[in-house]
Amino acid sequence: MNEFELIARLTKSLPTNETVSTGAGDDCALLDLGVPGQLILFKTDAVVEGIHFTRETPPEKIGRKALARCLSDVAAMAGTPVAALVTLGLPGKFEPEFIGRIYDGLNALAEKSGVAIVGGETTTNPERLFLSIAMLGTVPCGKPILRSGAKAGHAIFVTGELGGSLAGKHLEFEPRLEEARWLAGHFGIHAMIDLSDGLAGDLRHVLKASGVGAELLKSAIPVSRAAKMRAREKPPFAAALTDGEDFELLFTVASQDAVKLLDAWKKKFPKLKLSCIGKIVAGDGIILRDQTGASRLETHGYAHFA
Amino acid sequence: MNEFELIARLTKSLPTNETVSTGAGDDCALLDLGVPGQLILFKTDAVVEGIHFTRETPPEKIGRKALARCLSDVAAMAGTPVAALVTLGLPGKFEPEFIGRIYDGLNALAEKSGVAIVGGETTTNPERLFLSIAMLGTVPCGKPILRSGAKAGHAIFVTGELGGSLAGKHLEFEPRLEEARWLAGHFGIHAMIDLSDGLAGDLRHVLKASGVGAELLKSAIPVSRAAKMRAREKPPFAAALTDGEDFELLFTVASQDAVKLLDAWKKKFPKLKLSCIGKIVAGDGIILRDQTGASRLETHGYAHFA
Repeated sequence: MNEFELIARLTKSLPTNETVSTGAGDDCALLDLGVPGQLILFKTDAVVEGIHFTRETPPEKIGRKALARCLSDVAAMAGTPVAALVTLGLPGKFEPEFIGRIYDGLNALAEKSGVAIVGGETTTNPERLFLSIAMLGTVPCGKPILRSGAKAGHAIFVTGELGGSLAGKHLEFEPRLEEARWLAGHFGIHAMIDLSDGLAGDLRHVLKASGVGAELLKSAIPVSRAAKMRAREKPPFAAALTDGEDFELLFTVASQDAVKLLDAWKKKFPKLKLSCIGKIVAGDGIILRDQTGASRLETHGYAHFA
Repeated sequence: MNEFELIARLTKSLPTNETVSTGAGDDCALLDLGVPGQLILFKTDAVVEGIHFTRETPPEKIGRKALARCLSDVAAMAGTPVAALVTLGLPGKFEPEFIGRIYDGLNALAEKSGVAIVGGETTTNPERLFLSIAMLGTVPCGKPILRSGAKAGHAIFVTGELGGSLAGKHLEFEPRLEEARWLAGHFGIHAMIDLSDGLAGDLRHVLKASGVGAELLKSAIPVSRAAKMRAREKPPFAAALTDGEDFELLFTVASQDAVKLLDAWKKKFPKLKLSCIGKIVAGDGIILRDQTGASRLETHGYAHFA
């Protein structure tokens, strides 16, 4: 049983109540707590020593990454982050200085993003540092942008370049908050997700939630410089499809909006690439098209317990 | 540096914004997100294998305890819990059945408490199970019940009986949600906290936040049967003062309300003891009074890194 099978089993029959607009299964939960015109976003995400960072990672970058991952999930709902709590599981021996530097990195990104750090908890996790962030945000009511909104005919877009994140980007990525809000404010964004498990894996989450398939154009997928530099370890295109932790946005828009979106994007965000990588089709799974023809993609993203 | 010194250092200069009504340092954070007449409560709490439970603990009770601890913090603000997220750090080898049973216990208490479980995360924590809950709730605007509201002359009350929780209660306690809301609705409750670190420790949190001292009457402190049964391991009165995880409420009311409160409580909650254990005084620290006189109490509660 891998991570996704376990989650599917655990989330089958969770307790609910009248506040729940969207429960388990999207980038954030959405709650209607009675804020006029707004839903509340609610999300947690953890980083663990030896898995998401090492003992050699500069502590400022550990704190920054933990918060940035949650912010990326808020971005995937085109939301605005508001407040966070920090849960620290500390090894038996720890340097207060080290913990202070984790907070320095976390606080700096929080300041920049307008997020209040309103408390949290320290407890013991003897063998390794465990750092979990709980995040609250807001998003305008109306049609929330879920994973389930993709329809046949939509164009599929990704921001930035993909693959090779472990070379450094995973500690320094910019959550696409501003970009996501601009997209939602100016275009009909029908489905959106942040790429944490790799393009192939996360696109499959969208396809499954939406009950559709996708056809990707191989030459259109933006392969990062980091993935190309590591070609000896892994073919760059495979890295772009399956490496985790890109933290870019993947979203769909009606095909007739695609060109207008690309034009407007270039003016608004000239430094950040936006690529139309394919289209949503009827059916299921991913078809990859290159100059030699089309084939079904069997590759999945990163599964945490695979 | 113990847990409390570390927290004091980390929370000195946290990023904030205009939504923050009460940040780090109370049982929950309080946020004004624009819900008419309400503040949002925000809290996280974690339980860790080997610290808060053992490998032999029935998994249903692990899940129940994790959620109940957060509910107890919501009770300490006289709030209503609404929704929770579950973060699971799983050892390399885990039985899906075991995780399912953790959720069974957690879900049962959530259902009973009206709490929606709206998602969460699974990740890896190779050596031991780490289970963190993030909780949202609401509380009426107005005068929130903080740790900092105690004033000289107030009577100090505790619910239930104290000490010896590790004999079983720590896995089965009832968060005092209904009692707390009833108290806040019918009496002027000026300061409140849930007893997680032991009476002596948690009362000191209230005293420090309020800038006052306390005088306790030894004979009035309700010592639990479990503490008395374990007298050979630890003097029962010391257990009532310093054992952690009682998860009862400690609160202060104006002294003229004390008798009226005790009478009304007996009618409303006949099965749950309520004890007036002393009074708030000017100064600092705790003075303990018995038939032989008064002495300064040096004992502290449980400090997680002591």
